[in-house]
Amino acid sequence: MKEMWSSDLLDMKPYVPGEQPKDRRYIKLNTNENPYPPSPKAIEAIIAAANADLRLYPDGECGDLVAAISEFTGLPASRIFAGNGSDEVLALAFRAFFASGAKARTPDVGYSFYPVYAALFGTNIEYVPVNEDYTVPVEAFLDTPGGVVLANPNAPTAAALPLADIERIVAGNPGRLVLIDEAYVDFGAETAVSLIEKYDNLLIVRTMSKAHSLAGIRAGWAMGCENIITALNTVKNCVNSYTVDRIAQAGAAAALRDREYFESTRRRVIATRERSAAALRALGFDMTDSKANFLFVRHPDFPAKELFMKLRERGILVRYFDLPRVSDRLRISIGTDGDMETLVAAVADIIGKRR
Amino acid sequence: MKEMWSSDLLDMKPYVPGEQPKDRRYIKLNTNENPYPPSPKAIEAIIAAANADLRLYPDGECGDLVAAISEFTGLPASRIFAGNGSDEVLALAFRAFFASGAKARTPDVGYSFYPVYAALFGTNIEYVPVNEDYTVPVEAFLDTPGGVVLANPNAPTAAALPLADIERIVAGNPGRLVLIDEAYVDFGAETAVSLIEKYDNLLIVRTMSKAHSLAGIRAGWAMGCENIITALNTVKNCVNSYTVDRIAQAGAAAALRDREYFESTRRRVIATRERSAAALRALGFDMTDSKANFLFVRHPDFPAKELFMKLRERGILVRYFDLPRVSDRLRISIGTDGDMETLVAAVADIIGKRR
Repeated sequence: MKEMWSSDLLDMKPYVPGEQPKDRRYIKLNTNENPYPPSPKAIEAIIAAANADLRLYPDGECGDLVAAISEFTGLPASRIFAGNGSDEVLALAFRAFFASGAKARTPDVGYSFYPVYAALFGTNIEYVPVNEDYTVPVEAFLDTPGGVVLANPNAPTAAALPLADIERIVAGNPGRLVLIDEAYVDFGAETAVSLIEKYDNLLIVRTMSKAHSLAGIRAGWAMGCENIITALNTVKNCVNSYTVDRIAQAGAAAALRDREYFESTRRRVIATRERSAAALRALGFDMTDSKANFLFVRHPDFPAKELFMKLRERGILVRYFDLPRVSDRLRISIGTDGDMETLVAAVADIIGKRR
Repeated sequence: MKEMWSSDLLDMKPYVPGEQPKDRRYIKLNTNENPYPPSPKAIEAIIAAANADLRLYPDGECGDLVAAISEFTGLPASRIFAGNGSDEVLALAFRAFFASGAKARTPDVGYSFYPVYAALFGTNIEYVPVNEDYTVPVEAFLDTPGGVVLANPNAPTAAALPLADIERIVAGNPGRLVLIDEAYVDFGAETAVSLIEKYDNLLIVRTMSKAHSLAGIRAGWAMGCENIITALNTVKNCVNSYTVDRIAQAGAAAALRDREYFESTRRRVIATRERSAAALRALGFDMTDSKANFLFVRHPDFPAKELFMKLRERGILVRYFDLPRVSDRLRISIGTDGDMETLVAAVADIIGKRR
């Protein structure tokens, strides 16, 4: 009965997220989740929202959540759009700006959901090779034919461009959308938020799933000029008027307002990252300069896929991508200090056994 | 900067949901929400899910929620798809089966989101006039060129087709999808669930927002043969792998398992509907035979729009559609007995004053 399907779906290859196994307890370093729980104030707000009002639809415009994002970023509410996780926001943005043959340029190593959106929405996407060290070649993103999609820091490379380079790209594409996906920006990269008021072709996407420890409630947002926000709302309201539920709106808003907790957990993650990076370097790994909550590592003498499987046997999940240019590497999310000590010890043991 | 927009968005007319005003307290009979709170067990489950695990992504396959839907409907899990509200499920279904010029036939009076999906996804949609009494002419939905989209009970008419007619339509369209939107089915219509095992071209969509009193958490589901479920998963995983958050999965599953509460609240709504219908008939209104949680009423001597506005002034919101064939009518959601007594008294007063 596949003849009922829209024909372009027949060979569509959906995004495959990192595994979420239920068979046993793992140390989960494979989906870039935060090792720390969400702000206690977010939990309180969620519990407070678990009341009889759940019989009512949520605020489709996410008024209080947008207000909290406005306080968090310093931008006016009119430049903010809230959605059901940054993946949904990215999908709406592809539909709004890069659909039906529109051109977009993106690095060949990047978030593996972008090619999926491109296939679904018919984006004519061009892949620009990243440099040998996985940094993004800025020149190749100036004067593009249709716009840019770029994660900063990039995934899975963890490498980031400085704000000045992002501004060059935005300024270098007048009248064409530059989408900067800042899912990981809170772990040490520079945000481009300051450019929003200056450029009308910049769209920044953010998530509550990483630095705010709320992957489980699905909230993300976009920032851009009012015309960009209107486009996102137009597409959203053609699909689902209420994508972010009452509970998620309440929890995300409370987490954003607990700035102190946010600062403290992201600093802990950064500190653990630096310690873990040093320990892995001492074992002979090379890696990019991570500005994210994960490391992108390669051991010159030990195949990444084998290490991935051996770690899995020991109850430690990391991410291996069987894709061009990255199949010799692993992406390792930053866990707690204890998680990372366990990881480093396991890696040392696996590598040592082979020598 | 609208030149950055995908060109088809420029004249897209998004869905406009019933208003959710914040300026004052209204008796809200305009968006077909349930007047009763969700099951206490749903609230408990949500509170229990408000824990440190919110740092982790939800189960993308909604395993336990699908299990609860399976228990509720008697269908195997392989025939069930869970999504972020039935509006999202409907959008995914339009994308999967009715996109890019595919044909679909639907009544000219129906859920006003269908034309919006059709515009976004490029469905070649044909509108079949409903009968004078707003019932759906079954013959016109046999041997259709591309498939059928039909709400049963229909919205905003509240009229329902019996199961035998739904089966005629499903059987009358072999190889073409028949999408039955059963958002309101629990208030007195016959579900087509029993046909799922028999026909591979039937897709039924349901929601937690009406009879389960959970509009605020956004959960809905679809039922169909495995090939239909695979198509929905394919589109979903090209947009957002995790559309239903941890809290919504927990709350919806608990609500579905509290069958006793569900039966009791839907019976209360039905009883209130019958009392309200009788009271409005006594005031001279005519109406369809409602099998939903709303009434679709017309007063022969009093314009619907004027009544809508006068009720609004008195703090009572009902729904008025300025659309062909229905602009002489109001759609009134069923509230509590108290809400409906207030409504009937206000209507009697408004109509009486004019005489």
